[in-house]
This record gives sequence, C-alpha cells and structure tokens, in this order.
Amino acid sequence: MHIDIITVVPGLLDSPFAHSILKRAEDKGVAKIRVINLRDYSTGKQKQVDDYAFGGGAGMVMMIEPIARCIEALQQERTYDEIIYMTPDGVTFDQSIANELSLNQNLLILCGHYKGVDERVRERFITKEISIGDFVLSGGELAAAVVADAVIRLIPGVLNDETSALTDSFQDGLLAPPVYTRPAEYEGMKVPDVLLSGHEAKINEWRFEASVRRTQERRPDLLRNRDQGESDGTSNEK
Amino acid sequence: MHIDIITVVPGLLDSPFAHSILKRAEDKGVAKIRVINLRDYSTGKQKQVDDYAFGGGAGMVMMIEPIARCIEALQQERTYDEIIYMTPDGVTFDQSIANELSLNQNLLILCGHYKGVDERVRERFITKEISIGDFVLSGGELAAAVVADAVIRLIPGVLNDETSALTDSFQDGLLAPPVYTRPAEYEGMKVPDVLLSGHEAKINEWRFEASVRRTQERRPDLLRNRDQGESDGTSNEK
Repeated sequence: MHIDIITVVPGLLDSPFAHSILKRAEDKGVAKIRVINLRDYSTGKQKQVDDYAFGGGAGMVMMIEPIARCIEALQQERTYDEIIYMTPDGVTFDQSIANELSLNQNLLILCGHYKGVDERVRERFITKEISIGDFVLSGGELAAAVVADAVIRLIPGVLNDETSALTDSFQDGLLAPPVYTRPAEYEGMKVPDVLLSGHEAKINEWRFEASVRRTQERRPDLLRNRDQGESDGTSNEK
Repeated sequence: MHIDIITVVPGLLDSPFAHSILKRAEDKGVAKIRVINLRDYSTGKQKQVDDYAFGGGAGMVMMIEPIARCIEALQQERTYDEIIYMTPDGVTFDQSIANELSLNQNLLILCGHYKGVDERVRERFITKEISIGDFVLSGGELAAAVVADAVIRLIPGVLNDETSALTDSFQDGLLAPPVYTRPAEYEGMKVPDVLLSGHEAKINEWRFEASVRRTQERRPDLLRNRDQGESDGTSNEK
C-alpha cells in the first residue's frame, strides 16, 4: 500500500512514521508513506498556502490553488483509490472503515490546518471525508497518522503475530477482555485463577464472558449494533 | 499545564510536540509536555516492560511493576489531577472532555502498547480511561498526542486568535460552516455571493444556516443532543 499525505507541517509527521508498526511496515516493503509539503506547490514568493476567509472572521483558510496543483501533480504518478480529507465534519472513523481502507493500493490524505480548506477543494477533489472523533485538533496531521496506523497494522505481514489484530477490540463488535501478565500476585492483587489453570476451553469462556460484560458496562451501544447487524445480515463476516 | 506521557516508544512523539500548536504552547510557557520512557523504570537487564499474557493467546501485555515504579516516582514530583490510560475501551474522547481537561494543572497519560497493560494497573492507578474512537491503534502514543493537542489548543494564549477555537465544530453543538478564500472564482467555481457582500448580519445568518444544514445532513445526532441539552438544562453554558 502507498499512502501520500499532504500537509503544511511535514516535520510534524517525521517521528510517528519512523517508529513502531509504521516503520516495520516500511521496512518489510508492505507499506510506503510519503509526506508531501504543500508549500512546494505554492507559486507565491512567500510560499503562501492560506488566506483570510471571505466574509471575515477568525482563522485562515487553505487556498484551492496550491492544493489543486499538488493533487494534480501526484495524480500524474498514480491513481488513488481514495482522496481523503481529514475534517471534524467527516464520517467518523471506526474499525470497519479501517478494514475497508486496508484493502486499497493507493491512498491520498489531505490534512486541513487553520480553519480548514476552501470548500471548493472538497467539492472538486475529495472522495472521502473522515473525522477521527467529535473534537477539534490544530490540524489534520495527527488524525492522518492515526488513520495510517489503524489501516497499516491490518495489512497481512505487518503485525508479528497475525492473529493479534483479530482479537482486538471492535473486530467482533466487543471490547477486549482484561489482560494479565506476571507476577501472578502484585501487592495482594491476584490474577484470576482461571487464567492460571491451563484449561483452554475455560479460559476462552472466561474471556468471552468478560468481553461481553465489559461491553455491556461500558459500551452497550456496541452490543445493540452487533445484535442488529446479525439479525439483518449486515454483520461483518467472520 | 504540565502533561507527562509514559510510553515504551518515546521517539514516536518527538516531532508532534516539536511543531505547530504544541510547540507554540511550550514556547509561550503555557504548557509543558514531557515524554517519559517506561523502560527507564524496568529493573531487568533487558529493560523488559512486557511479558506473555496469562492464559495464553497472541500479543504481549505490559507488566505492572515498571509502570508502578514509574508512576510512583512521578507522583513524588507533583500531584496529578488525572492519571489517564489511553485504551479503546475507555470513554470516547470528545470536545466536552477536552474542555474539562483543559482546566487541569497536571495530567499524566499512560500509553498502552501491544495488547495493553495488566488489568491491575488500571485498578490501582488510573483515574480516567479515554478512547479516541472505535478503532485500534498499534499503541496509545498517537492517541495521547491527539488528546494533548485538543486540550492544549484550548488554553488561553495558545491560539493566535482567541476567538478561533470558539467557532470550531462542536463548541456549540454544530458542525462548522463551509469556508472560502481567494480567488473568488476558480475554474468556474464561485464563492457564495453573500460572503463577498460585506454585510455582516447576512453573512452571520448564512453561516448559521449553513452550519445547521450541514449538521442535519451529516450529524443529525448532534442536533438531537443539542435540543435535549437545551431542554433539560445540561447544555454547556456559553
């Protein structure tokens, strides 16, 4: 998979892509992430990429012209499956969107900054608008890194243990059960006996029940969606 | 505000905190972020911080002992308002949580990695569990950076224009209206006339209506919550 990310603060993304999963995916040749400096596509002397909003008000708006030049230049190199704009009013990112995106070959992600991009950029170029949640960030860069991480770890070969991602929260509509490791007792706090029993069937049963209980307590909405998905056949096939 | 972030991949967070809002907040002395390497608190020769899960299964679990040593050492220096664990099964982060957190003086954020932390860490130390959304990341680091960014930009003096954050999406329960900047016409695509009119009352009316329309189309759930909040008096006071 190839992911291009357009940003006005390319340096912000240096270290996230040089560590952990994303680094490993690059090293294995499974995914390539390229961070593109939007200012390289500004024709002005000041490398200007933003201007005041028409109609007044606080905050700068990213201009269409540099973005158009940038996207059109990148499109000469490859065809993108999706051109994504990170924006708080986009579709809320979740594991099912991550799963879908992980099947693509080429993604282009445009990071908004300041007050966002000129609306005409969205009308002309963007195929998918994604929000990582109901909050506002100073730019789309961290959101783009979050999407890249969530997507790339799903590509076969990236995680050391292929089965690890399948037991994550959300993949089966349930939260993950509690996990424990050594020591078996810490200052009087003990690991549940069943996990030390070596009895695989009982351990699996305990984990499933703990998952359901945790989901009921913390996210009953996930259980309702899960029941609905199963009854109307839209559940993800597993 | 002081934010300490505990992680096993401290390098991942180098660049996000060296740019943009977070850098500006540090330069102005408004916020200080410190990234703490959990491995410094491991007593093992290998600087081990994780081990196999009791009960078996894929994925490593972060051990309680190094985390306990780390948190207890940090608590000698300051009292934290919250000790936050980033986890997919936490409370979903949103603008109201960002607003609340921005009022604190000292925050400690623990980033999970691998399969997460030993459950006893959560029982013993954590005061708030936060998820940035219904998806799984390879670690809590990017999620912690997202929370730090969303929170710190709300502290007075961080944004250049104080009023900018108030007109963001979610602050009034509505999505932001479309924004436009020069040129007034781009390849036949025109900016709405009203925004060029200079008539402030009409511009404000257009923006409000565009906000409501966009929210109706994209996030009718926000409008329902907003109406409910107003009628039962739980709306955020503005």
